[in-house]
Amino acid sequence: MALMSGTELARDIVGRASAKAADHTKRTGRKPCLATVIVGDDPASVTYVRMKQNRCHKAGLESRHVALPDETTTEQLVAKIRELSDDPAVHGILLQHPVPRHIDERAAFEAIAPHKDVDGVTMHSFAGMSFGHNEFVSCTPGGIMRLLDAYDVEVAGKHAVVIGRSPILGKPAAMLLLARDATVTICHSKTVGLAEIVRTADIVVAAVGRPRFVQGDWIKLGAVVIDAGYNEGNVGDVDFDAAAAHAGLITPVPGGVGPTTIAVLLEQTVDASLRQLDA
Amino acid sequence: MALMSGTELARDIVGRASAKAADHTKRTGRKPCLATVIVGDDPASVTYVRMKQNRCHKAGLESRHVALPDETTTEQLVAKIRELSDDPAVHGILLQHPVPRHIDERAAFEAIAPHKDVDGVTMHSFAGMSFGHNEFVSCTPGGIMRLLDAYDVEVAGKHAVVIGRSPILGKPAAMLLLARDATVTICHSKTVGLAEIVRTADIVVAAVGRPRFVQGDWIKLGAVVIDAGYNEGNVGDVDFDAAAAHAGLITPVPGGVGPTTIAVLLEQTVDASLRQLDA
Repeated sequence: MALMSGTELARDIVGRASAKAADHTKRTGRKPCLATVIVGDDPASVTYVRMKQNRCHKAGLESRHVALPDETTTEQLVAKIRELSDDPAVHGILLQHPVPRHIDERAAFEAIAPHKDVDGVTMHSFAGMSFGHNEFVSCTPGGIMRLLDAYDVEVAGKHAVVIGRSPILGKPAAMLLLARDATVTICHSKTVGLAEIVRTADIVVAAVGRPRFVQGDWIKLGAVVIDAGYNEGNVGDVDFDAAAAHAGLITPVPGGVGPTTIAVLLEQTVDASLRQLDA
Repeated sequence: MALMSGTELARDIVGRASAKAADHTKRTGRKPCLATVIVGDDPASVTYVRMKQNRCHKAGLESRHVALPDETTTEQLVAKIRELSDDPAVHGILLQHPVPRHIDERAAFEAIAPHKDVDGVTMHSFAGMSFGHNEFVSCTPGGIMRLLDAYDVEVAGKHAVVIGRSPILGKPAAMLLLARDATVTICHSKTVGLAEIVRTADIVVAAVGRPRFVQGDWIKLGAVVIDAGYNEGNVGDVDFDAAAAHAGLITPVPGGVGPTTIAVLLEQTVDASLRQLDA
C-alpha cells in the first residue's frame, strides 16, 4: 500500500496558478478575484470560506466576501449572485453550500455566469464535464482526477465505482472518469449488494458523507481508493486502516482529496480571469 | 420471455398528446409547431425527418421544415436555429443528426432555446435529466423509461448496464435510470470484460449502433433487455433470438424503442407549446 497525498500536489497546482496570477497582475494591474458568498452562519461553512479566502490571498489572488443573513430569500440570493456575475471586477464566484433549506440551491447556482463558475456547480459545467469539454470542473472531482494523474493511475478500461451521486461530487466524478474511458458504476443509498459491487472495482471513489462507511474487506487487493469524504473528527468515508490493508493506493483524510479541491478552485479562478481578460 | 412492444404504448402517448394539441388549438387558434432542421441530403435522415413530420400532422401538430445544403457552415446553421428559437410561432426544434462532419454539432444544439428543446439535446436538458428535474428528456432514453413503466419493470435498486455513452442516448439513459434509483454501470468501446459486466445486469440497455453486438449468453436469466439500436436491415444492437432465450422481457426491433422515441418527441412538443402559451 502507498499513500496518495494531496498536499504536495496541491502545492504544485497553487504554485503554478500563483505564477500565472502574478503575471496577470503585472499585465493588467489587477488581481484575479474570487467572490465568495455565504448565507447564514454555519460554523463549518464559515471556516471553509475563510480558508478559501486565505489561500486566495497567499496565492496573490483577491477575494471579495458577501455574507448574507440566514433569512435571505432565494430571490435575494439570486439577485446578489447575478450582480457578481455582471461585475467585471469579479472573475470567479463561489457559493458556499449547503445553503439554508428554504433556499432553492439550484436556482442560486444557476445565477452564476457559466464563465465565472470556478467551483463547477452549474448545469452548464456539469454537462461540459459529461461531454468531455474542457471547461470548469467541480473542484473535488477535478482534484480527484489530478490525484489519479499525479500517481500515474491508469484510468482507461478500468472499472471505477463511485459511491454517491450528488450533483457536485458523485455525479461529476463519475462523468470525469467516464470521459477518461473508465467503465463507471454509480452506487448510492438505494444500491443493493454494494459490498459485492465495490469488490469488483479497480478504482473506488467514496463520496457518501458517512464516517468510515466503506469497509476494508470491500476493497479488491491492489485497488485505488479515493476518499472524498470529510466527516466530523477528521474522518473520511473509508475505514482507512482496514482499507489500507487491501488497497494499492489510498488517499488519507485529511491531506488527500481536500487540499486538491481548494487548489483546483484557485487554478480555475486564475484561468477564468485570464479568459475574461482575453475575451 | 415476453416481448416489450412499443407500438401500442406509442399510440397511447400520441393519443393523449393529440388530445392536448386539439385543446390547445381550440383555445388559441394555433397548432403546436415543431420545426425540423436538416443539413444535407443523407437518405436515412431525410426519411426520418419525413416520418416525424407525418406523425406531427396525423396528431394535429404543425411542422415547419428547414432544409439546408450540405455546405452550410456552423455559423449559418446556428443563425438559423437561433431564428427559430426566437420565433414565437415555433414551439419545438429538432435538429436531425448526425450533421455533416464540418459542422460543430454541439454549437448547433446549443442554439436551441432550452424551452424549445423537445428532442432533449442541449446541455441544459442533459443536466436537467441528470439532476432529476422535470424538463425535456432526450427522446429515445425518455421512450425507454416509458417502456419500463408500461411493463411494470421495477427500476429502483436494480443493476442497470448501459452499453454506449453518446450524449443523446447512452449518457442520458444512464442518468434517467439513476434518477429512478437504479445502480448504473456505463460501458463503452474501451470497457474490458463487457460480457461479464452485462451478465450482472438486471436491466440491459444496448445503445452501441452495431448490429447484433450484444450476445445472447451475456444476458442473465430473466433480465430486461432494451435494444435502442437500429441498424441497416431492421436489425438492432442485440442478437435478438439468442437473447430472447435468456431475457424475461425484451424489446423487438423494429416495434420496440423506435415508436416510443417519436411519441415522446410529439408529446414534448405539445407540452412545450402549452408552457409557452402559459408563460
